[in-house]
Amino acid sequence: MGGNGREKDHASELRSIFSLKKIADAVNGYEEAKYVVFGIPFDNTSSYRRGSKYAPDSIRGAYVNLESYEYSYGIDLLASGMADLGDMEESEDVEYVIDTVESVVSAVMSDGKIPIMLGGEHSITVGAVRALPKDVDLVIVDAHSDFRSSYMGNKYNHACVTRRALDLLGEGRITSIGIRSVSREEFEDPDFRKVSFISSFDVKKNGIDKYIEEVDRKSRRVYISVDMDGIDPAYAPAVGTPEPFGLADTDVRRLIERLSYKAVGFDIVEFSPLYDNGNTSMLAAKLLQVFIASREKYYKEHI
Amino acid sequence: MGGNGREKDHASELRSIFSLKKIADAVNGYEEAKYVVFGIPFDNTSSYRRGSKYAPDSIRGAYVNLESYEYSYGIDLLASGMADLGDMEESEDVEYVIDTVESVVSAVMSDGKIPIMLGGEHSITVGAVRALPKDVDLVIVDAHSDFRSSYMGNKYNHACVTRRALDLLGEGRITSIGIRSVSREEFEDPDFRKVSFISSFDVKKNGIDKYIEEVDRKSRRVYISVDMDGIDPAYAPAVGTPEPFGLADTDVRRLIERLSYKAVGFDIVEFSPLYDNGNTSMLAAKLLQVFIASREKYYKEHI
Amino acid sequence: MGGNGREKDHASELRSIFSLKKIADAVNGYEEAKYVVFGIPFDNTSSYRRGSKYAPDSIRGAYVNLESYEYSYGIDLLASGMADLGDMEESEDVEYVIDTVESVVSAVMSDGKIPIMLGGEHSITVGAVRALPKDVDLVIVDAHSDFRSSYMGNKYNHACVTRRALDLLGEGRITSIGIRSVSREEFEDPDFRKVSFISSFDVKKNGIDKYIEEVDRKSRRVYISVDMDGIDPAYAPAVGTPEPFGLADTDVRRLIERLSYKAVGFDIVEFSPLYDNGNTSMLAAKLLQVFIASREKYYKEHI
Amino acid sequence: MGGNGREKDHASELRSIFSLKKIADAVNGYEEAKYVVFGIPFDNTSSYRRGSKYAPDSIRGAYVNLESYEYSYGIDLLASGMADLGDMEESEDVEYVIDTVESVVSAVMSDGKIPIMLGGEHSITVGAVRALPKDVDLVIVDAHSDFRSSYMGNKYNHACVTRRALDLLGEGRITSIGIRSVSREEFEDPDFRKVSFISSFDVKKNGIDKYIEEVDRKSRRVYISVDMDGIDPAYAPAVGTPEPFGLADTDVRRLIERLSYKAVGFDIVEFSPLYDNGNTSMLAAKLLQVFIASREKYYKEHI
Amino acid sequence: MGGNGREKDHASELRSIFSLKKIADAVNGYEEAKYVVFGIPFDNTSSYRRGSKYAPDSIRGAYVNLESYEYSYGIDLLASGMADLGDMEESEDVEYVIDTVESVVSAVMSDGKIPIMLGGEHSITVGAVRALPKDVDLVIVDAHSDFRSSYMGNKYNHACVTRRALDLLGEGRITSIGIRSVSREEFEDPDFRKVSFISSFDVKKNGIDKYIEEVDRKSRRVYISVDMDGIDPAYAPAVGTPEPFGLADTDVRRLIERLSYKAVGFDIVEFSPLYDNGNTSMLAAKLLQVFIASREKYYKEHI
Amino acid sequence: MGGNGREKDHASELRSIFSLKKIADAVNGYEEAKYVVFGIPFDNTSSYRRGSKYAPDSIRGAYVNLESYEYSYGIDLLASGMADLGDMEESEDVEYVIDTVESVVSAVMSDGKIPIMLGGEHSITVGAVRALPKDVDLVIVDAHSDFRSSYMGNKYNHACVTRRALDLLGEGRITSIGIRSVSREEFEDPDFRKVSFISSFDVKKNGIDKYIEEVDRKSRRVYISVDMDGIDPAYAPAVGTPEPFGLADTDVRRLIERLSYKAVGFDIVEFSPLYDNGNTSMLAAKLLQVFIASREKYYKEHI
Ligand SMILES: [Mn+2]
Ligand SMILES: [Mn+2]
Ligand SMILES: [Mn+2]
Ligand SMILES: [Mn+2]
Ligand SMILES: [Mn+2]
Ligand SMILES: [Mn+2]
Ligand SMILES: [Mn+2]
Ligand SMILES: [Mn+2]
Ligand SMILES: [Mn+2]
Ligand SMILES: [Mn+2]
Ligand SMILES: [Mn+2]
Ligand SMILES: [Mn+2]
Repeated sequence: MGGNGREKDHASELRSIFSLKKIADAVNGYEEAKYVVFGIPFDNTSSYRRGSKYAPDSIRGAYVNLESYEYSYGIDLLASGMADLGDMEESEDVEYVIDTVESVVSAVMSDGKIPIMLGGEHSITVGAVRALPKDVDLVIVDAHSDFRSSYMGNKYNHACVTRRALDLLGEGRITSIGIRSVSREEFEDPDFRKVSFISSFDVKKNGIDKYIEEVDRKSRRVYISVDMDGIDPAYAPAVGTPEPFGLADTDVRRLIERLSYKAVGFDIVEFSPLYDNGNTSMLAAKLLQVFIASREKYYKEHI
Repeated sequence: MGGNGREKDHASELRSIFSLKKIADAVNGYEEAKYVVFGIPFDNTSSYRRGSKYAPDSIRGAYVNLESYEYSYGIDLLASGMADLGDMEESEDVEYVIDTVESVVSAVMSDGKIPIMLGGEHSITVGAVRALPKDVDLVIVDAHSDFRSSYMGNKYNHACVTRRALDLLGEGRITSIGIRSVSREEFEDPDFRKVSFISSFDVKKNGIDKYIEEVDRKSRRVYISVDMDGIDPAYAPAVGTPEPFGLADTDVRRLIERLSYKAVGFDIVEFSPLYDNGNTSMLAAKLLQVFIASREKYYKEHI
Repeated sequence: MGGNGREKDHASELRSIFSLKKIADAVNGYEEAKYVVFGIPFDNTSSYRRGSKYAPDSIRGAYVNLESYEYSYGIDLLASGMADLGDMEESEDVEYVIDTVESVVSAVMSDGKIPIMLGGEHSITVGAVRALPKDVDLVIVDAHSDFRSSYMGNKYNHACVTRRALDLLGEGRITSIGIRSVSREEFEDPDFRKVSFISSFDVKKNGIDKYIEEVDRKSRRVYISVDMDGIDPAYAPAVGTPEPFGLADTDVRRLIERLSYKAVGFDIVEFSPLYDNGNTSMLAAKLLQVFIASREKYYKEHI
Repeated sequence: MGGNGREKDHASELRSIFSLKKIADAVNGYEEAKYVVFGIPFDNTSSYRRGSKYAPDSIRGAYVNLESYEYSYGIDLLASGMADLGDMEESEDVEYVIDTVESVVSAVMSDGKIPIMLGGEHSITVGAVRALPKDVDLVIVDAHSDFRSSYMGNKYNHACVTRRALDLLGEGRITSIGIRSVSREEFEDPDFRKVSFISSFDVKKNGIDKYIEEVDRKSRRVYISVDMDGIDPAYAPAVGTPEPFGLADTDVRRLIERLSYKAVGFDIVEFSPLYDNGNTSMLAAKLLQVFIASREKYYKEHI
Repeated sequence: MGGNGREKDHASELRSIFSLKKIADAVNGYEEAKYVVFGIPFDNTSSYRRGSKYAPDSIRGAYVNLESYEYSYGIDLLASGMADLGDMEESEDVEYVIDTVESVVSAVMSDGKIPIMLGGEHSITVGAVRALPKDVDLVIVDAHSDFRSSYMGNKYNHACVTRRALDLLGEGRITSIGIRSVSREEFEDPDFRKVSFISSFDVKKNGIDKYIEEVDRKSRRVYISVDMDGIDPAYAPAVGTPEPFGLADTDVRRLIERLSYKAVGFDIVEFSPLYDNGNTSMLAAKLLQVFIASREKYYKEHI
Repeated sequence: MGGNGREKDHASELRSIFSLKKIADAVNGYEEAKYVVFGIPFDNTSSYRRGSKYAPDSIRGAYVNLESYEYSYGIDLLASGMADLGDMEESEDVEYVIDTVESVVSAVMSDGKIPIMLGGEHSITVGAVRALPKDVDLVIVDAHSDFRSSYMGNKYNHACVTRRALDLLGEGRITSIGIRSVSREEFEDPDFRKVSFISSFDVKKNGIDKYIEEVDRKSRRVYISVDMDGIDPAYAPAVGTPEPFGLADTDVRRLIERLSYKAVGFDIVEFSPLYDNGNTSMLAAKLLQVFIASREKYYKEHI
C-alpha cells in the first residue's frame, strides 16, 4: 500500500478497501445499470407492529446468502446490471417521502432503467404510481384492500394506498391479489368495484394462473407492488399484521415470474425485520432475484 | 367532566372512560348477546410446554387487529351480538374447573345463546360436553387422540378428553379430525373404534370436505372443539407439543364454516402464547370470527 | 347454580364467575378505594421501539406472580384499598388522550384518592401535571431530559414532557433524576436550568439519598413519574431506547419508598412489553407495590 | 437401597438410577440393536448460521415428546431395537471427523445393523458414503447441489458433499431432491449432469412419487441423507440458510417411508437448534421415527 | 479400527468413540471421583414459568465453554475428581423423586464423596436434607422464604422447601439468604423465626461477608442449596419468577467460595433454560466450578 | 427535479437523495475527518457463538438512536470530525484480513487521524498493533487472556491476540483488564507475567481508577481495544461466550474517558448481534461516543 508524491492522503486507497453495504450483486454504478435498487426506510403511518423501515438493510443482509446465479432461470444476477443507490435519508413526513419517491422513480424510468424499491411501508407506493406512464397498470399483492379514503386523519396512511392509486389511475387499471381483510366501509364504497380485488380464497380455489392471465391479457405494461403480508404468515411471519389464509410463497413467485417481462418497476414493502426468524428477509431477497432473473430470461429468449 | 350534588364521587364518570379488555367486537351485554365468549385460564394438567392459561388474553389482544367486518362472509361482527364475560378466576383444581365450565355452558345454552370458550387446556372441554343436550354430537380438531383412561393418575388430564367424552356421549357420536399421534395403549383399547378418528394423512389424501359431509349427514347438532395442535405447526407454532404433518389452516377454517350452522357451542384450546411469534394468536382470533360470521351468514341466507 | 322465577336469565350468576383482568390485589371498587389504578394504552408519538400501549396488561399479568404481602414493608396490599378501573379506550389523538388524563386525575384526586397511572408513553404525564394542585411538585425518573419545545411538529411528543411540565409548574418545581441523554438544543435552552436535572452519573457518585433529601426538603407534596428508561437496561431492558449507564433498580425503589408519603399521584411509563424478557414487567409491578406499601407503612407508623 | 459386603461402594446402585440422555426409545444396548443412533456434533466448515453441532441433543430432547407407538405405521418403536451410542467427542478437524464416521458406519454395517447418524453439518455424510457397499446408491434431500470442487480452500466443506460423493460412487448413482440453489460454477461443471438433481419446483409440479419411483426402479439399496434445508423453512426454520420454495414436510416423509425398506443407513444433518422455535427438532425426531417405523412395517408385512 | 476373533461385534470399539454428554471436566468414573454430579429433571410442582427440568442438560452445554482451569483459584477442574452420573429418569411423582434423591445423596455421602445436584425445581432439596448427617446445617440462597406448610394441596411443593427442612433439622439450623418475597401467612407463622432469613436488602446494606461469617461461626458443616432466583434477574434472567432487587452474582460467588470448605453437598435449582439468553446457564456452570475450585484450593492450602 | 442539457442521466441528482448507511454523526469525508470509523466484518476463527461480523451494521443502527450531543462531556459529535469508510469486503482468510487492517490503520495514522475499528472478532486487533508507532502501548478490555500460542492450529485465532501483541510489543507494554478466564497452559506460560493482566475481581475490590492510573503513569500513548466480553453479560449479553462476574459498564466508560486523551486508536470487537436484546449494540455505540467526546473535551479544555 504505497502512495506517491501527488497524493495528499490515503483517501483513494482506503476507498478501494471499504464500502458501505449494497445488495451483493449490485456491482454496477447507476450509469451502466439496468435495474436500480433503492431503500425507503419509512414506516411512520403504521399503527401496529412497526419496523418496516429496517427492511432495506435486512434484505441486503439476507441477499448475501443467495447464489448470484439463479438456477431456475439460468440467469447470472452479477451480469444483469444491478445498481444499489442506498437508502433515502429518514424523514417522518409522509408527503415529503412520497414526493421524493415520485421524483426518484420518474428519474430512473426516464433514464430507461427499472426502479426496484425496498420499503418501508406500503404508502410509498403512491409515489411510484404517480410517476407511471399512462399505459402502465398496477398489480398489487396484499392481504388488505388498502382502500380507505383516509385513516387516522391521513389520506397517505398505508391503509389507503389502493384508494390513492385508483384516484390516479382510474377504473379497471388495478388488480390486487391475496385480499382477505376488508373493512365494511371499504367494501360498501361504490368505488370498491373499480379495482379488481382477488381474494386468497379465490386463488386457492382457481389457481394463480387464471388471475395472472387476466392481467397479462388486459395490461400492456405493469408496475408490481408486493406487500409481504399478502403471502401467508407461515412463509412470511415478519409483517405488521400477520393475516391467516394467505397466498403460497410459490403463488407470488409465479405471478412475478410471469409478469416481470412487462414490468416497468417493482417494490417490496411492509416487511418488518423486528419480527423475523430469518425466513421473511430471505424470501424478500429471493423475490427480488426472481423479478430480475425471470425478466432477463424472457428477454434472452425473445430477443 | 362536572359532577352534581346528588353524586358522592366521580365513579360513574370514570366508568364511562375506562374498561377492562374485552374481545374488540364484544359490544353487547350478556342479556342481549347471541354469542357469549369467556376465558378459562387453566393449564394445570399439561406436562410439557405450558402456558395455555395465557391464551384468552392473547386472543383478545390479537383480535384488535382484525376488521370487524368479515369480508369473506359479508358479515359485520360488531352487529352479530357478541358479549365477553371475561375470565374465570384461576384455580389449580381440575375437577372444580370442569364443574364450573359445565355450569356456565348449561346456563348460557339454557338462555338460548351460543357459548364460545377460550381455553386453557383441552381438559376443560369435558365440562362443556357434560352440559350438551342429548342430540348434540362432538366434533374435535386435534393432533392427538386424547384417549387415555387416565394420565399421571388423573382421569381429567388433557390427554383423556376424548375418552371422557365417549363415557358421556357413547359410541358413534364423536368425530376427531387431524389425528397423527396415538399411543399403543390407546390404539389397542377396544373402545378406540367407537370414536371416528380421522388422521391428518387421510384429510390430505381425500380432502376435508369428505369428512365434513360425513359429520353433516350424521349429526343433527354439534359442539366444535378446536385443539390448536390439530393444525400444522407451520401455521400454529405456539402449542404444547408441535406435531408435524398437521391439518392446513384452511382445512380447519372450512370445517368450521361448513358446520357452524348446526353448532350449539365452540371452543379453542391448547394455544400457549409463551411460544408464539404472533401467528397463532391471530389464527385463533380469526377462527373465532369464522365461526360467528359463517353461522350468521347461513342464517341470514336461510331464514 | 339455581335460578328463580324472578330472573329472566343467568347473567348475574355468570357475573359472579367471570371477570376481566385487574391488578391482582385490586379487590376494591372505586368508591371504597384509596389507590386507583388505570391504564392509558397510548404510544402514538413514539418514534423508535413502540409498544408501551401494551404495558398496562403486561404489568397486570406480572403482578399476579407477586405476593400480596410486601414483606419489606410489612404491608398487605390486599388490605390497602386498591381499585383497578381498566384501560381507557385507545385513541390516536394525543391531545384528546392528555385531556382525558387530566379529567381522570382531577376526578380521582377530588375524591380524595391517589391516582396510579400505567402508561403508555411519557406524554400522558402532561395530563396528570395539569390536574395537580398548586403546591404539588414533580419528581421524574428518566434517562432523557424530555425538554424539546416540540418534536416532529408536535409539542405533546413524549420528548417534550418535562418542557410542558415546566410551562405549567414554573421554575424550581421539577426534579428529573437519571438523566444521561440530552440534545444540544435542549442543553442550550435558557430554561433548561429551571429544572433540577440530576444525571445518573451524579447519582452513582453521590448516592441517591442526597437527591431524595433535596426533594424532601423543598417540596411539600409531590407527583412521581417513573419513565422506565431511567433505570439501567440491565434491570429494565424493555424500553423504547435502552440507554446505558442508568440508575440501579434499588435507587428507584429507594426514591419511591422515601417520597411516597408525600405523593398525591404516581405513574409508570415507557415500558414496552414487545421487548421484554419478563424482567421489566416484574420490576414495574413491584415498583407499584413499593409505592403503595411504603406509603401505607409510613401512615401506619405515623398516625 | 441396601448394599452388601462384597461391594465397596454404591456405584452400581447409582448406575441403575441415572443415565445420560438417549433417544427415548433407544432401550437396547448395541449388541442387541437393529438401529444404531449416534451423534456427530461437528459444524466447523459452516460459514453462515452455525449451530448444527447442537442438533443431536436437541433431537433427543424433542423425541421425548413423541409417542413410542407410530400410529400411522402401527409400529412400536420401543420394540424395534434402537440403541443410542451418544455423541462423538468434538473435534475441529474435518478430515478426522469424516474418517471416524467412515469407521463407525463400516463397523455398524458389518455388524448387520442400520446406522442412523445425527449431524452436525452435511460434510459428515462423506464418511458414511465411503463406507457404503458397492451396490448402495445415495439419495439426498437438499436445497443445495453441494457440488463445489472445494470451498474456502477445503474440499470437505459442507458445500462439496455431493461432489465428493460423486468422486466415490460415480455417475448415475446419486439422486438429490429439493434443489433450488446452485452456483453458476456448479451448474456449468460438466460433471453436474452425472447426478440426478431434482428441483423442488419439479417436485411441486409432478409430485414426489414420480421421483421416488425412479429411485426405486434403479437402485437395489440406498443410503438416505436428509439435509433439513431441503424442506421448506415454513416447516423447518432452524437451518443454516433458509431457502424459500422448499419441499413440503410430507414430501420428505413420503420419500423416507417409500424407500426405507431398501435403506442401509440414514442421516439427518444441517439442523441448527440455535434458530429453532421447536418445530424443526420435532420434525427431525419424527422423520427418524418415520424411517424406522416404515421400514419395520414393510418387513413385518413382507416376511 | 481392527477387531479380532474373540469379539462378536464392534461394540467396544464404538464405545471408545462415543459418549453421552457429561459435564466437560467429569472425566472420572464414580469410583475414583470426589465430586459426584447428577441431574434431577423434575419441575412438576412449579406453577408459573416451568422448564427447570431442562436445566441439567443446559448447564452441561454451557460448561463446555468454560476453561477447565479456574484461574481465580488456581485449580484445574480436570484434576479435581469429578464424575457425572447423568440424569434420573423423569417421573411426575414428587414423593418418589424426593425419596430417590434421599437415597442417592445418602449413598454418595456414605462413599465419602460430595454430591452436586443439578435441579430441577427446589422441592428436590428436601430429599438431600433428609440424607444429611446430624451436624450438617443448611444454607440456602433464595428470593423466596419457601415456608408454606403446603401449597396447592401438596406439602412437597417447591414453595414449601424451607418449611420441610425446618421439620427435619429444627430451629437455628437454617440460613436463607436473598429473601425478598414472603407471603403474609408465612411471615406470621410462629415458626418463621426459627429460620435465619436474610433479605437481599440486608445484604446490600451490610455486605454479604457479615452473613457468611455468622454461618461460618455457628455451623460445623453445611449443605449449600442455590435457588437461582436468589440472584438478581439482571444476572440470572431464566428463572420461574424473576424477583427484582436480588443478590449480586458476586455475592453468591463469595458465599460459595467462603463456605465450600465445610460443605458436604451442593445443589443448583430453579433455573429454567426456556427463558435463558445464555447468561443463566453460564452462571450456573460457573458457580459449580467455583464450588469445587474454592474447596480444592482450601484443602490444597490447608492440608 | 429538473435536469439540463449537459447531463446524460439523473445520477448526480439521485446521489444527493440516497446514501448507504453510515454512523449517524459521520458527516465528514475522509479528507477532513479527525476520527475515521471502519468496519471489519470478520468472525471466522470464532468457535462458539459467531456473528461478530454483523456488528458494524448493528452498531451503526443503534447509533441512530443516540443524541449527537454528548451531554456528560458537553461535546457535539456532529462537529467532531467523524468519517465512516464503510466495511471491508468479507474474506475468510484471517491473515489477509489482518494484513489489510495493518495497511488501513497505518494509512489513517500517517494521515494524522484516529482510526476507530468496529469488529468483527478480536483477531483483527493484531493488524492494528502491527501498525502502531514504537511508543504506543496497548490497553485491552477482555474477560479472556487471549494468550494461547495458537488455537486450532491457527496462531491468528481470536484466542491468541494478546500473545501476538506481546510478540510485537514486548514485555511491560500491555495491560489487559477484566480478565476472569485463563487456561492452565496460558497461566503457566513463563511469558504470561510479561503482560499486566488485571482480573475483574481486582477491579471490583480496588476500583478501576487504580488501574487506569497505572496505565496513565507508565504509557505515553495508547491504543485501546475493547473486547465486549470484558463487560459483565448483564450489560453486554450479546458476546460469544458470556463470562459471569465481569466489569461494570461504568468501569469501561471510565477507562475510556480517562485514557482517550492519549489514545491513537480504538476498537470495539467480539459483539455478536445474533444474541442481542438491543442493549449491547447501544452500549457499543455509546462507548464509541464516549471515546470521541471525552477526547474532544480534553483537548478543548487543555489547548
Ligand atoms: Mn398494503
Ligand atoms: Mn397489507
Ligand atoms: Mn387435545
Ligand atoms: Mn392435542
Ligand atoms: Mn421520558
Ligand atoms: Mn426516557
Ligand atoms: Mn447439504
Ligand atoms: Mn443444504
Ligand atoms: Mn426456592
Ligand atoms: Mn425461589
Ligand atoms: Mn478477546
Ligand atoms: Mn474475550
